[in-house]
Amino acid sequence: VNETEIIRKLFSPLAATEGAFGLRDDAALLPAGDYVVTKDLMVAGVHFLESDPPDLVARKLLRVNLSDLAAKGARPVGYFLGCVWPAKIKRETIARFAEGLTVDQETFRISLYGGDTARHVAPDAPLMLSVTMFGAPPRQEFVRRSGASPGDDLYVTGTIGDAGLGLAALRKELACAKAAKEFFVERYRLPTPRLTMGGALSGLASAALDVSDGLIVDAGRLAEAGGLAAEIQTAAIPLSAPGADWLSGEDDPHAAYARLATAGDDYEILFAAPPTRRRAVEMAAKVSKTPVARIGQLAKGEGVRLVSQDGEEIDTGAGGYDHFAS
Amino acid sequence: VNETEIIRKLFSPLAATEGAFGLRDDAALLPAGDYVVTKDLMVAGVHFLESDPPDLVARKLLRVNLSDLAAKGARPVGYFLGCVWPAKIKRETIARFAEGLTVDQETFRISLYGGDTARHVAPDAPLMLSVTMFGAPPRQEFVRRSGASPGDDLYVTGTIGDAGLGLAALRKELACAKAAKEFFVERYRLPTPRLTMGGALSGLASAALDVSDGLIVDAGRLAEAGGLAAEIQTAAIPLSAPGADWLSGEDDPHAAYARLATAGDDYEILFAAPPTRRRAVEMAAKVSKTPVARIGQLAKGEGVRLVSQDGEEIDTGAGGYDHFAS
Repeated sequence: VNETEIIRKLFSPLAATEGAFGLRDDAALLPAGDYVVTKDLMVAGVHFLESDPPDLVARKLLRVNLSDLAAKGARPVGYFLGCVWPAKIKRETIARFAEGLTVDQETFRISLYGGDTARHVAPDAPLMLSVTMFGAPPRQEFVRRSGASPGDDLYVTGTIGDAGLGLAALRKELACAKAAKEFFVERYRLPTPRLTMGGALSGLASAALDVSDGLIVDAGRLAEAGGLAAEIQTAAIPLSAPGADWLSGEDDPHAAYARLATAGDDYEILFAAPPTRRRAVEMAAKVSKTPVARIGQLAKGEGVRLVSQDGEEIDTGAGGYDHFAS
Repeated sequence: VNETEIIRKLFSPLAATEGAFGLRDDAALLPAGDYVVTKDLMVAGVHFLESDPPDLVARKLLRVNLSDLAAKGARPVGYFLGCVWPAKIKRETIARFAEGLTVDQETFRISLYGGDTARHVAPDAPLMLSVTMFGAPPRQEFVRRSGASPGDDLYVTGTIGDAGLGLAALRKELACAKAAKEFFVERYRLPTPRLTMGGALSGLASAALDVSDGLIVDAGRLAEAGGLAAEIQTAAIPLSAPGADWLSGEDDPHAAYARLATAGDDYEILFAAPPTRRRAVEMAAKVSKTPVARIGQLAKGEGVRLVSQDGEEIDTGAGGYDHFAS
């Protein structure tokens, strides 16, 4: 096994598009256009587990980047891939990783355009993955993180907290039925980028971002970008059936809500829109076949409040994952 | 120290250009245009040493990517940055790293457009850096790796082997005078992207790439992309004065040439051009104030031969660095 063989056999077939030169050059040439570009890293032990299947790791890598493009209303086109493999990597693992890329390249109609690959010298250094993904801007405006106004509603797609429970289950920190565990783990390993709904948000949402580090911390980012405060009602947070089951079995429902709302890895779109557009948001959700829930409001002020049905404010700690908190 | 503070204070000032949104969004919006894009990774212990100063690591990171754009004749515009810091990273190290970026952003008139940052959980996992850099294509044609013809001359910019000696010196595997050591180490830590000469190569060179893994292996890539063989004459390989000094002190000059020509980290441009363009190449070198040496020729066939002054073929082993050779 050598570097050239790995690139030629496993990765070049993923770069069949014009301008990628089949990965046989030092740079790619993008077709003329405007581009929305995002970059998300994934590191074993931080963003995924070493035990996660390599094909699902590859698909998650694409999907977390697709999720960023979705939140901006962009249509994905292609990506650049960086991989630093562990010292003891086997060719078979890389092949399974490339298979995962193949599956999701077809699902999302994107192409590999270039990249770089290396191998760690340090014996236990973890797999490190980096993607820079680009797409076409939405026909109407690019949906910024800022842009929300006081009084705007706050919405989120899909369901919240499943992936966090999946991670806990994989770490054997969660007791639940086998079917529920499988559901949570699937949600952790394979997020669903909300591209169709994201496209519909252009011209509709006043602000948007994807929920990656936790609903509370990401709501804080959206609010802060607009110089606002956010309030989220626990009862309005959309839960999956297994998520609701788990919650109903918890002794402290406030702590359970806080856990779901700060768990991260949801990769749903959080967005704001004025109340006058409630009907339009409903229509967009219907047309794009995407569950959307109205979970709160934005107001003058700062910070995020998570409020229970009885009006009590729930402590959410740091609100989500911070890579530098120690 | 938290993630938001680090991004706001240390990295946002590097992203003052329009479309980067001061790193306060999930994606950047590139100005309309054609783009040449490249991606090069750097990992501590593989592409640089843990003991290298953080500001120089940052500058090398930009320069190895700039070197790829230079070899394609592209004019750099901006980049996306991915960093995975060691678990025990200090804010001061990140600050020095950002200072290095600042210096070379000004030198090369480029801007940060976006990125992602994370921290390892594993205690000894190394610093991992990833850059995706984009630029404007050359006015004339994009210089491909393929495109050379039998009979074309082979040229290289600058000098070869200094960086490899610098790495050996840092690893205490090289005995030489202090001034020579400083020179070699500087060449290892701070390559010079040949952007002006690269720009001049568009419409002049038949093929080009940057020498990153070793002159021999990269000459092999250029030759193979054109379905050709390459021959390089040792006496024509451009050496720095300290490099020539080192060579003259070696007992086995053939082995010494092989070492210089396979050492890697040169980040010079290797290019081919028909003999009818020798005068034009000389002029381009003069105008761009870039040393250029004619080191060999391309011919029908395959493989790379390194030939000594007495006509003997020199064994160059694998020809350079292969991340997957074990």
